[in-house]
Amino acid sequence: MSGQPTVDGGGLVLAVDLSTTAAKAIASTTDGVVVAQASRPLRTAQPAPSQHEQDAEQWWAATQAAIAATVAQLDDPGRVRAVCLTHQRETFVCLDGEGRPLRPAILWLDGRAHAEIAALGSARVHELSGKPPDTTPAIYKLAWLASHEPEVLRAAARVGDVQAYLAARLTGRWATSHASADTLGLFDLRRLDWSDELVELAGLRRDQLPDLVAAGEQIAPLTPDVARSLGLPSPVPLVAGIGDGQAAGLGLGATEPGIAYLNLGTSMVLGVQSRGYRWDPAFRTLAGLRPGEFTLETILNAAAYLASWCREQFGAAGSDGQPGRELELGASRVPIGAEGLVTLPYWNAAQTPYWDPLARGATVGWHGRHTPAHLYRSILEGVGFELRLHLERLEEVTGTPITSIRAVGGGARSALWIQILTDITQRPVRVCAAPEVSAAGAAILAWDFVRADAALGDGALGDAALADAAPPVAALPSGRDVAPNPAVAAEYDALYAVYRTLYPALRPIFHALAATASPASAPGPSAL
Amino acid sequence: MSGQPTVDGGGLVLAVDLSTTAAKAIASTTDGVVVAQASRPLRTAQPAPSQHEQDAEQWWAATQAAIAATVAQLDDPGRVRAVCLTHQRETFVCLDGEGRPLRPAILWLDGRAHAEIAALGSARVHELSGKPPDTTPAIYKLAWLASHEPEVLRAAARVGDVQAYLAARLTGRWATSHASADTLGLFDLRRLDWSDELVELAGLRRDQLPDLVAAGEQIAPLTPDVARSLGLPSPVPLVAGIGDGQAAGLGLGATEPGIAYLNLGTSMVLGVQSRGYRWDPAFRTLAGLRPGEFTLETILNAAAYLASWCREQFGAAGSDGQPGRELELGASRVPIGAEGLVTLPYWNAAQTPYWDPLARGATVGWHGRHTPAHLYRSILEGVGFELRLHLERLEEVTGTPITSIRAVGGGARSALWIQILTDITQRPVRVCAAPEVSAAGAAILAWDFVRADAALGDGALGDAALADAAPPVAALPSGRDVAPNPAVAAEYDALYAVYRTLYPALRPIFHALAATASPASAPGPSAL
Repeated sequence: MSGQPTVDGGGLVLAVDLSTTAAKAIASTTDGVVVAQASRPLRTAQPAPSQHEQDAEQWWAATQAAIAATVAQLDDPGRVRAVCLTHQRETFVCLDGEGRPLRPAILWLDGRAHAEIAALGSARVHELSGKPPDTTPAIYKLAWLASHEPEVLRAAARVGDVQAYLAARLTGRWATSHASADTLGLFDLRRLDWSDELVELAGLRRDQLPDLVAAGEQIAPLTPDVARSLGLPSPVPLVAGIGDGQAAGLGLGATEPGIAYLNLGTSMVLGVQSRGYRWDPAFRTLAGLRPGEFTLETILNAAAYLASWCREQFGAAGSDGQPGRELELGASRVPIGAEGLVTLPYWNAAQTPYWDPLARGATVGWHGRHTPAHLYRSILEGVGFELRLHLERLEEVTGTPITSIRAVGGGARSALWIQILTDITQRPVRVCAAPEVSAAGAAILAWDFVRADAALGDGALGDAALADAAPPVAALPSGRDVAPNPAVAAEYDALYAVYRTLYPALRPIFHALAATASPASAPGPSAL
Repeated sequence: MSGQPTVDGGGLVLAVDLSTTAAKAIASTTDGVVVAQASRPLRTAQPAPSQHEQDAEQWWAATQAAIAATVAQLDDPGRVRAVCLTHQRETFVCLDGEGRPLRPAILWLDGRAHAEIAALGSARVHELSGKPPDTTPAIYKLAWLASHEPEVLRAAARVGDVQAYLAARLTGRWATSHASADTLGLFDLRRLDWSDELVELAGLRRDQLPDLVAAGEQIAPLTPDVARSLGLPSPVPLVAGIGDGQAAGLGLGATEPGIAYLNLGTSMVLGVQSRGYRWDPAFRTLAGLRPGEFTLETILNAAAYLASWCREQFGAAGSDGQPGRELELGASRVPIGAEGLVTLPYWNAAQTPYWDPLARGATVGWHGRHTPAHLYRSILEGVGFELRLHLERLEEVTGTPITSIRAVGGGARSALWIQILTDITQRPVRVCAAPEVSAAGAAILAWDFVRADAALGDGALGDAALADAAPPVAALPSGRDVAPNPAVAAEYDALYAVYRTLYPALRPIFHALAATASPASAPGPSAL
């Protein structure tokens, strides 16, 4: 953060990240220092193994509580200039005319709509929406509702994303940003507007959907009642935020095409910015930070999830209640290539670039000297080979080399794993220290608005000095750099060449195995 | 054993099984009752990971001690009519002119000769010897000696199998049976004689090899000194025995082509008798019980070995010092097909029908609900699918259906595993209770000799009554029958169809993985 001028020492913005697990609020200065924060957990219901739902009213309660608790930590709540949201993507609500949920919100990881994905998913949907047919986009779950709960869609005055719901509660306006709305999969990304064709496919009407506001512009001021309930002396603007993935990229300073953000969490998401619209199975395309910019993301749905699974299933109990900690040390002593064991990490199916819902995990090369530590290392390496596959396909399609990676997420806390990823991809990785990078991205958007508003000179916010300040984007977020070891490049190259042949060889077997399974025993994405 | 007349209640034979782990002696009546037994352990040295050697002098010491301890349990050692040996196969010794070992014996599981297998193994060698190119036949290890220790082969007055060595110590005669000698891989199986072509390929001379005696005929009487040292009042005949696999088949009454013996031990060996010589990758061919008969064996080198590996690596420690016992119970609760997880059990490479030394194990179909019990069940099923593959290929080549299986070995003690094997193959399995079936087979050969000798009426043994007695073969050895459950046949059929495609799909990957490994890290058959 050094080198950023600190202007208006007294100004603050509030950023809220409504993730899958919690509402997290931060109060942040113009140079990115978090001066107060609070978090409230969220509950997820699983009415069936593949179904994942949350209560939108709880989003609102948790958001209010997290903001109020943050504001309560400030010496002067009057310092707050704006609020901005980021959030779990693809999740949607159906509301009645009074804005009350007609049913629980259906989450991004909910896998109930496999039949609708098979029936409606197509290259055309991909081309329009930027989203390859897959579990996450809301369009298929909306189509599921249209046939399984038609009364809900008929009664719904509003259908929208997380930001639209929270914006309505905060400001009274039913609106969201392009980069939040588009994750529903109903959006014409080239035109940056709802697609009549996709809206019809989902069984919706256009009038149900929220207004669109560009990211970083004002949706509306908070209502006086809401401002008061949050402890804010005046109704500050709600600035249009974006989905948590793109916000993390912004928070990490991955705003140039050659710099990728990597979230090594439950799933692995790598994202880069792109100028001009592209669609390809190598990535999913999202609305970017500005009109005409797009975010391209590669995805593997089992990353840190898979490492945790291995530690829990095959590790020792552990005196501290954390199973399998010995595997991390053991795996660091296993040689590169795990003595001939290679793992295809498709425990939760294959996403980019294969998009195969029937793909599963595989470990190939077992012999008698293998131990659980070999399996663990092979899993860490398998995710590394998959990352390299994602990077190379992304570069092939965009023509833009990716020269550095900025990593966050639970998996990034493993020094061994980061070294493996760095060595396999032969690209430098910066492991970023900031715990709330999505919220940091939302704070940057909020400051962009505050600054632009000041520049307009309408004086509403009284921060004229901000107009000349440098943007607060942390071009190089704090963290630690890990350099690839060129001495092991050739060894990993040879293993990667084998890895690349694994899925093509096993694809028919995955499909045949799926055909032998009874529907009841088919694994859903509940494992996410 | 019921229904067999007991003649000459006083007569006994001694049978000795010199296995890889021990010398085991039994004294047995004509109706197969074991009245005395003793065992002495053997040590195996591993001078290098893939090298396995034993001291032949120790074989002799252990054999003497086991026989003497057995004889000492008899009320009247004068009841002993004959001695017969069975033994670990393919293992060989090199002796000087005085019969002293020039180096340690090299065992069947010794994997040092991979280069020689690649260089000398051929369809021609297979056709002549009945042995597909593989780790076990001595011919490749002899060729290894010819280039690595040429002085040993030059100095060797005698090169032979275990029976030849022990026969020389017991009787002074350097001789063995066809069914013991042929496992060295130097034998022309059609002609039942040493093959000049193969002997030359191995770098040997014919004069180094032992005389040949048909199984069940006399090699020579014990020398008076040896008889005395064993506690025997007279030099009884040493009857030519056979290798432990064929002897087990005889002991289990698997003497008709439709009845198979199954040793579910460290490795899995299934054998049937065949009239007329055949050679095919579906089996290895061995000299049978009589001239013109052959034993066809299918092999998987990791069976109970693999189950033990899984219990040790992935099971709980176990309060009794036996790890992974909970996996057996857990696997019995996992549904058929292990919820989509299928295992190729080639932890120790592939033998029949693929003979691929570079093949390795694979588990395919992983998802997040899988547990160690799923892996364990998948391993048990994988061995079952492999058994079905072996049976079906064997039947294809011989045209003779295999209608029942008689099982022994450590793995056969698992009721779950036997039910899985029975259900997958849809063939009845009799789990045989007798602990020493190879020795029981040798005892049958000894009695055959005693009976024939009596029939000749030369009176040497004074057992004229035996000539009319029914042969003592236990047509149905004691044990428990397990019937296949027809209700699960279709489910296993579908999984088996997937299983059959696994190796062909993974073969290029195994070969590519092997190419990435440094020679030092290549797994040898040490894991056997």
